[in-house]
Amino acid sequence: MSKKKQPEELSELGEFGLIDQIASKTKLFHPETKLGIGDDAAIIQTKEAQQLVCSTDLLIEGTHFNLMYMPLKHLGYKAIVVNLSDIYAMNALASQVTVSIAVSNRFSLQAIEELYKGIHLACERYKVDLVGGDTSSSPSGLCISVTAIGFANSEKITQRTGAKHNDLICVTGDLGAAYMGLQVLEREKEVFQQNSQIQPDLASYAYIVERQLKPEAQKQLIEFFDQQNIQPTSMIDVSDGLASELFHICKASNCGVQIYEEKIPIDQQTHSTALEMNLSPTMCALNGGEDYELLFTINQKDFETLKDQKNIHIIGHITEAEAGKNLVTPNETVVPLQAQGFKHFNT
Amino acid sequence: MSKKKQPEELSELGEFGLIDQIASKTKLFHPETKLGIGDDAAIIQTKEAQQLVCSTDLLIEGTHFNLMYMPLKHLGYKAIVVNLSDIYAMNALASQVTVSIAVSNRFSLQAIEELYKGIHLACERYKVDLVGGDTSSSPSGLCISVTAIGFANSEKITQRTGAKHNDLICVTGDLGAAYMGLQVLEREKEVFQQNSQIQPDLASYAYIVERQLKPEAQKQLIEFFDQQNIQPTSMIDVSDGLASELFHICKASNCGVQIYEEKIPIDQQTHSTALEMNLSPTMCALNGGEDYELLFTINQKDFETLKDQKNIHIIGHITEAEAGKNLVTPNETVVPLQAQGFKHFNT
Repeated sequence: MSKKKQPEELSELGEFGLIDQIASKTKLFHPETKLGIGDDAAIIQTKEAQQLVCSTDLLIEGTHFNLMYMPLKHLGYKAIVVNLSDIYAMNALASQVTVSIAVSNRFSLQAIEELYKGIHLACERYKVDLVGGDTSSSPSGLCISVTAIGFANSEKITQRTGAKHNDLICVTGDLGAAYMGLQVLEREKEVFQQNSQIQPDLASYAYIVERQLKPEAQKQLIEFFDQQNIQPTSMIDVSDGLASELFHICKASNCGVQIYEEKIPIDQQTHSTALEMNLSPTMCALNGGEDYELLFTINQKDFETLKDQKNIHIIGHITEAEAGKNLVTPNETVVPLQAQGFKHFNT
Repeated sequence: MSKKKQPEELSELGEFGLIDQIASKTKLFHPETKLGIGDDAAIIQTKEAQQLVCSTDLLIEGTHFNLMYMPLKHLGYKAIVVNLSDIYAMNALASQVTVSIAVSNRFSLQAIEELYKGIHLACERYKVDLVGGDTSSSPSGLCISVTAIGFANSEKITQRTGAKHNDLICVTGDLGAAYMGLQVLEREKEVFQQNSQIQPDLASYAYIVERQLKPEAQKQLIEFFDQQNIQPTSMIDVSDGLASELFHICKASNCGVQIYEEKIPIDQQTHSTALEMNLSPTMCALNGGEDYELLFTINQKDFETLKDQKNIHIIGHITEAEAGKNLVTPNETVVPLQAQGFKHFNT
């Protein structure tokens, strides 16, 4: 009996063949996922007293990622993680995702498999079910759209709106690393473009490069809140830079903020690389973006529970709106915060 | 006091400005939508005993639409409708959508507003809430991703899997029109490209062109099933052509089909335009795609309730899998069905 030849090209496998192949490699973790890939829509069981949260992102080659230094497996992983981050930012746990991709014919079947390896790895790591999507061709470039779904009891869901005067402002992890990782990758890309014999040496930038290429979402914070019975008063994920996210909380909660420069968590590698590139580490943390840490506010009564958590940093407090949005420098100077944030449409 | 200047460029308005503008023009119809645009994720109240259905599509300029003849308002409308069609195909009602767009800098703010006019119009027409999304730039072309969410009692949700021997095969509306509309638009585009003085005369193709540019989804069928207490045994929307959808039902339900060529509903304009272009009207209906009609199977006991419905056509019946997938021609010849369907990756 002749062995069936494995298709090596997307055009040979076809859209339905590709969907079957993706579905066969997809594990489901939630009994609530009643139907995943393969029908007109996925079916998910809802639970009484829970609300659904839903978020979506579109990642475009040339705008959000550069395949010269972004391996496809990492890209797939990151595409999932950045969406889960939005669900966690609502104090909900993510349970399902849909992924749509459009690829130009310069992508081989193997390339698409690499992308889905990363997608499946993130789904496994965060225990979310890939339940659907869409695959098609694109005239140029790669385009990925992810929608994430999560559930939480309605009283736990946290918006940007609840920050109150004197609440503590906290952030997980460290900031500015992903941005500095991007600067290093861009620099090495230019060196490589000028002389392809020079291989990039990224060993001494391993942490910041990984933060750019393979970020993680802060699921453990949501689990911690649940275990400790802490209800944050407001929360947002740090995707566009700390300053921009603080502005969002101030606008939504009608408040001001005072944060302390020396309290902003910055990794040593971020710090030294910023100085090496003549950048201010604080500015990188404030405006860098893509950290996917969680920024949240809590009532002061929760201080005792939080204060010894290594991964949580208290960086300031909420003020009255009239007091403005301020950064206190180490020499006690008060500087108004500037939000540069995300400027996709500025060319 | 000086009047605030209205921004005319996307780069002037910025991403957050654009989101605010979209949000201000968005009406919500469902009390279950607890939070729409403006936070990390939307919040939707779920109901006991209901299941969530969720579907997503990615539309890419140059693959799924051509802006030479697709007005942006129509495109926005169609992007919503094609997703709602997937939700209706589960015998559920759609209630929320998210929309993400990526646009190159050749698009003006006015162009984006036109696109959202169509999106808002479809949301109003079908009573669905636009609850979130993402906006960014793209190095080239326009890219739209829509995710639709709907709810239904779990016992009503209809998959592709339940078709049984002797069930009747039904389809709404008429088939092949959107495909013929596309052929006319492509022909006129070529004429126009050769001589831009020649303006297209589409008056005698109005119906089929509208079916291509501004399709509608079959919400009223889902309402009819509910009112008449009819439970279809399987259902799918006709996006890739009748033959391809029948193949999906046969595969999922492990059955065969026998359909009758003369029963396939084809509009007179589709018929005459196909002949004008030396195409077989039946082939256009079988393989054309983009009809967004609903194809479903019912138990014969429901025949009496359905038979006088003008918009519903009984085109054949389900057979044992071994009998195959067959088309009976008007002269009683039995021809095996071929599914050409959707060949996005075939170049």
